Amino acid sequence: MDEILSTIHSAKDLQGLSHKDLERLAAEIREALCRLLGQRTAHFASNLGVVELAIALHTSFDFSQNRLIWDTGHQVYPHKLITGRYDEFSTIRTRGGLMGYPNPAESDYDLFMTGHAGCSVSCGLGLTCADDLLRPEQNRHTVIVIGDGAFSSGIVFEALNHAGGLKKNLTVVLNDNKMSICPRVGGIADCLDRLRMSNLYTGLKTEIQRLLNNMPMIGDPVERFLAQTRDAIKAGMLGGMLFEEMGFRYIGPVDGHDIRRLQKYLVKVREYEDPVLLHVVTEKGRGFAPAEEDPVTFHTPAPFSRENGTIVSLRKGATAAPYTRLARDAILAAMQRDPRVCVITAAMCQGNMLEPVREAFPDRFFDVGICESHAVAFAAGLAKAGMRPIVDIYSTFLQRSYDQIFQELSLQRLPVLLMLDRAGVVGPDGPTHHGVFDLAYLRHFPDLVVMAPADATEMAPMIDLALSLEGPSAIRYPKCVAESVNRIPSPIEMGTAEVIETGEDGLIVVCGTLLGECGRAIDLLRTDGLNVGLINARFVKPLDTETILPAIQQAPFTVTVEEGMLAGGFSSCVLEALCDEGIEIARLRRLGIPDRYVEHATRNEQLEELGLTAEAIAAECRRLSLACEATAPVRRAAR
Amino acid sequence: MDEILSTIHSAKDLQGLSHKDLERLAAEIREALCRLLGQRTAHFASNLGVVELAIALHTSFDFSQNRLIWDTGHQVYPHKLITGRYDEFSTIRTRGGLMGYPNPAESDYDLFMTGHAGCSVSCGLGLTCADDLLRPEQNRHTVIVIGDGAFSSGIVFEALNHAGGLKKNLTVVLNDNKMSICPRVGGIADCLDRLRMSNLYTGLKTEIQRLLNNMPMIGDPVERFLAQTRDAIKAGMLGGMLFEEMGFRYIGPVDGHDIRRLQKYLVKVREYEDPVLLHVVTEKGRGFAPAEEDPVTFHTPAPFSRENGTIVSLRKGATAAPYTRLARDAILAAMQRDPRVCVITAAMCQGNMLEPVREAFPDRFFDVGICESHAVAFAAGLAKAGMRPIVDIYSTFLQRSYDQIFQELSLQRLPVLLMLDRAGVVGPDGPTHHGVFDLAYLRHFPDLVVMAPADATEMAPMIDLALSLEGPSAIRYPKCVAESVNRIPSPIEMGTAEVIETGEDGLIVVCGTLLGECGRAIDLLRTDGLNVGLINARFVKPLDTETILPAIQQAPFTVTVEEGMLAGGFSSCVLEALCDEGIEIARLRRLGIPDRYVEHATRNEQLEELGLTAEAIAAECRRLSLACEATAPVRRAAR
Repeated sequence: MDEILSTIHSAKDLQGLSHKDLERLAAEIREALCRLLGQRTAHFASNLGVVELAIALHTSFDFSQNRLIWDTGHQVYPHKLITGRYDEFSTIRTRGGLMGYPNPAESDYDLFMTGHAGCSVSCGLGLTCADDLLRPEQNRHTVIVIGDGAFSSGIVFEALNHAGGLKKNLTVVLNDNKMSICPRVGGIADCLDRLRMSNLYTGLKTEIQRLLNNMPMIGDPVERFLAQTRDAIKAGMLGGMLFEEMGFRYIGPVDGHDIRRLQKYLVKVREYEDPVLLHVVTEKGRGFAPAEEDPVTFHTPAPFSRENGTIVSLRKGATAAPYTRLARDAILAAMQRDPRVCVITAAMCQGNMLEPVREAFPDRFFDVGICESHAVAFAAGLAKAGMRPIVDIYSTFLQRSYDQIFQELSLQRLPVLLMLDRAGVVGPDGPTHHGVFDLAYLRHFPDLVVMAPADATEMAPMIDLALSLEGPSAIRYPKCVAESVNRIPSPIEMGTAEVIETGEDGLIVVCGTLLGECGRAIDLLRTDGLNVGLINARFVKPLDTETILPAIQQAPFTVTVEEGMLAGGFSSCVLEALCDEGIEIARLRRLGIPDRYVEHATRNEQLEELGLTAEAIAAECRRLSLACEATAPVRRAAR
Repeated sequence: MDEILSTIHSAKDLQGLSHKDLERLAAEIREALCRLLGQRTAHFASNLGVVELAIALHTSFDFSQNRLIWDTGHQVYPHKLITGRYDEFSTIRTRGGLMGYPNPAESDYDLFMTGHAGCSVSCGLGLTCADDLLRPEQNRHTVIVIGDGAFSSGIVFEALNHAGGLKKNLTVVLNDNKMSICPRVGGIADCLDRLRMSNLYTGLKTEIQRLLNNMPMIGDPVERFLAQTRDAIKAGMLGGMLFEEMGFRYIGPVDGHDIRRLQKYLVKVREYEDPVLLHVVTEKGRGFAPAEEDPVTFHTPAPFSRENGTIVSLRKGATAAPYTRLARDAILAAMQRDPRVCVITAAMCQGNMLEPVREAFPDRFFDVGICESHAVAFAAGLAKAGMRPIVDIYSTFLQRSYDQIFQELSLQRLPVLLMLDRAGVVGPDGPTHHGVFDLAYLRHFPDLVVMAPADATEMAPMIDLALSLEGPSAIRYPKCVAESVNRIPSPIEMGTAEVIETGEDGLIVVCGTLLGECGRAIDLLRTDGLNVGLINARFVKPLDTETILPAIQQAPFTVTVEEGMLAGGFSSCVLEALCDEGIEIARLRRLGIPDRYVEHATRNEQLEELGLTAEAIAAECRRLSLACEATAPVRRAAR
């Protein structure tokens, strides 16, 4: 079966294959994708959709010289399979294996790690401009493949606008699969629908004649003109205007599963000097019926097995609730209680498990597409007019909203709650997707309350507290099953930490859901005869200095634990408070994420590698305890 | 002369004024603007351009109920003058006076502080959605005035796209003055030019007939269709398509200095249920000939005096070089030496003093418009293909690029130099414009080198060092005249601080251009008999722990000084290093910006308020020194 694919060690090996061979290759790539998905969770439907496009691209251009960017990069599997990575393909998204996104360290065919959507046109325009300056004689061509979901990102518009102005030779392939991860939203989506639906082939002449006949030749010329253009658009007659207006030559729509036709247009665009937008229509999940029917579920499905070629049994994951679902349930409850509460998500309705919210409260649910900057400013507007908006976005993607968190939320003190899902390390998606900067980037904004629940019991009360505030707040939580740490419940009150254990031998102060690991660490230490205290910080801002600082002052040693960057994060905040209170730091050790990126692996492998497990935390405490014994501790407060 | 304007205590007082009165009012507003500009630097040309628009808006809508947002807010002066702030107008941009941007704390007519461009459509859409949910019976209308410069920001596109999809009642007034601050760039600019230039009134029918006659009725239907649409566009026939494609009803262009015509269209849009884009053409500097002729200089001119009504003498500012000019000169020198060096700015060619760069190297100079996200990703593309790009953007606006600094620069280690102009406090522009978060938000990114020159002599060597690196770097510097601190010059080497003075009584560690103040502080202290050492950190990342930590360990007290947020900033970095090395902090006091926003005032007033002057720094040292005497210091290193 794999006779062709296994012989492709580089895209150059595609040269000379017949059209029939290429079609067989496409089938083999689909088979390889299905085999992989029998093994583990990975991006699936989007990859099935671009098999022919990948083949057509690599047979129309030599991308060892020319430039190719996939945006977002989760549709890069067929590209990886035909650029020399077939043998390692089964390792994808595992520790030490291939990355699930383009990775320049893996292959020269991968130019940028495109985990966050939309930067491809900017990067591609940069490549083009640099090639023009440094090696104009080589006449290199840059091709960008961008999904219609990523296409709504503002940065794409910024880049198209710049490219249209510069009139550089640049080909943007709009991979229109009528979905991003969730169904798309917005005016552009409607526009693309019109482009695909319009009766270009037969109706054009008739339409123009009809327009001419109906043209009012009296009245205000501006109004008359407007009426005409509006009608023209409403008739769906003139597709591609959006792109033409921005200085792009528009070509399409082209069937994205027809290799020959794709090649024809790709060869043609090589000759153009102007920027070109090639509109390609593909089908997510193509060639695998269940994924064609339900591309949302099959975006990153759980492993499945095929029976008789078509029947699919999805192996269910753990049934315990992940933090994401707890958040959703608390949001839903708040919306039932309070008509001012509404939810904004950025193309992550499924990832954030918000479908029941969308169904129950369609009027108060806003999916803005992959537009995180807009999401936060839009929420600010809602808040200003009296709503209590919740912005539910992955921590890593909320980075796109940094400036809006500053100007629209913090500076103007508007009551918006930011829910940062997938905070901390996220497992197989790897470094583009970790939510490890959030504590550091949120805590420097005045008037922003920053919380991190430590277990399942804290999610709902934190959301309720946040919604009662008159200013902005943020709650960050990881991508994992939520455990409930056994203890006497204590209410979540503004700026208060929770003392879980006291112990004379040392202290652990934890921020967030590593509380469970820390609890197990002090159990381990107890068997060694060490009584180590444990504080759950709950708030990074305002920090509960009244609880935390004296406890640190009295402890022979302290270990802080956080699932975020150590530079500027939670422990840094504790150090500042100690310094500002004039408390000397006897022995304080900070556990968290050091100054580097964490590679893809399972989340547990990542936490282990980072020393953020019960065993590693206990070991650190033992080491510090021994050091305390060696040198009698001297502590006092300075003024 | 001011008979009308001085009687307008609220926009409601405009009701009942005749058209002639409104025109006189417009003249009076212009006069008030010119009087103000005789006193101090303020935004000028843009405000002259929107006098009639402000009057038309407030006479067509009651914005005590309806919603009005100005974007960016520096064109808000006429609005302030007719919404009850005439009496205080002369205080604008001074300490305790009116803010130079909309300020909700000043007036209910000001909804959002719109210092950073482009968020207005998002915020306005949020208002509209909230009004629909909470008070549909009131039928409130939201109007946004957005300049064509701000219009190129990606977030505007995200919001238009969302609004077009939602089909909400929302009016976006595109204030097209053919400029942002610098002349605009990009495909949209061309599109607007075409809209204004096209012969709508006479040529429409002819054009369509010509098209019909030339329509090829054979060949590939897709290609034929494309040829037609392209031609249609090239003829500039169908303006407004861009907006119509996104779901907006396009109206315009309308003369933005014709109050009656503006009122006519504004009243009409009140009736529409769909989103409307009203394209208004205005002239920057309107009514003041020198500003009409040179709107770039008159964007925020130095104070001027009028002689005989027309002649203008601009009072020159200080002639000593500001950091901005030193940066520019060093960039220019680097470009002369190395053909790989290129510059990207975001509509701040004038603010960054880059005109000579643009003139000398037009091929290697890229003004991308108000598109900071794109600017950084575009630079990443240039760097990937072998260039050495310098991104020259104000610190506060680079916040828009936070996510691109993460994914495109830090994660992929691409050699881009970020020049953060206007870092620290910026004086009269106030809280939206301070560059105070940069040290905190840059230093947590792996592999990013972060520098801050301490005086004039360090700018060029830091740029040269940065350009020699194989990874990303950032240099931040304030908006002020650069002094040269007298000392024995020492070369800038990667990650090395400079010991300027040693002193047994205490230590100051400074990051950035407050070195001069610190130098004067130790001079003051010397007269008191205190010998205090002084270290210029130069690098925030990598921090020179070998120089700084032992010096702190040995000093009876240490004061750190930085012009940035204390939360997560430079001093926080020092504390982390001390903690991680197990060094106890005897007495360390952190001077910088506390957890709040700094109001508009002069830069010197702001530094004084923050305790960042020589006197205040010396006073802090004295206080610490006395505390040392009171309790004999005990210091040692823990392991």
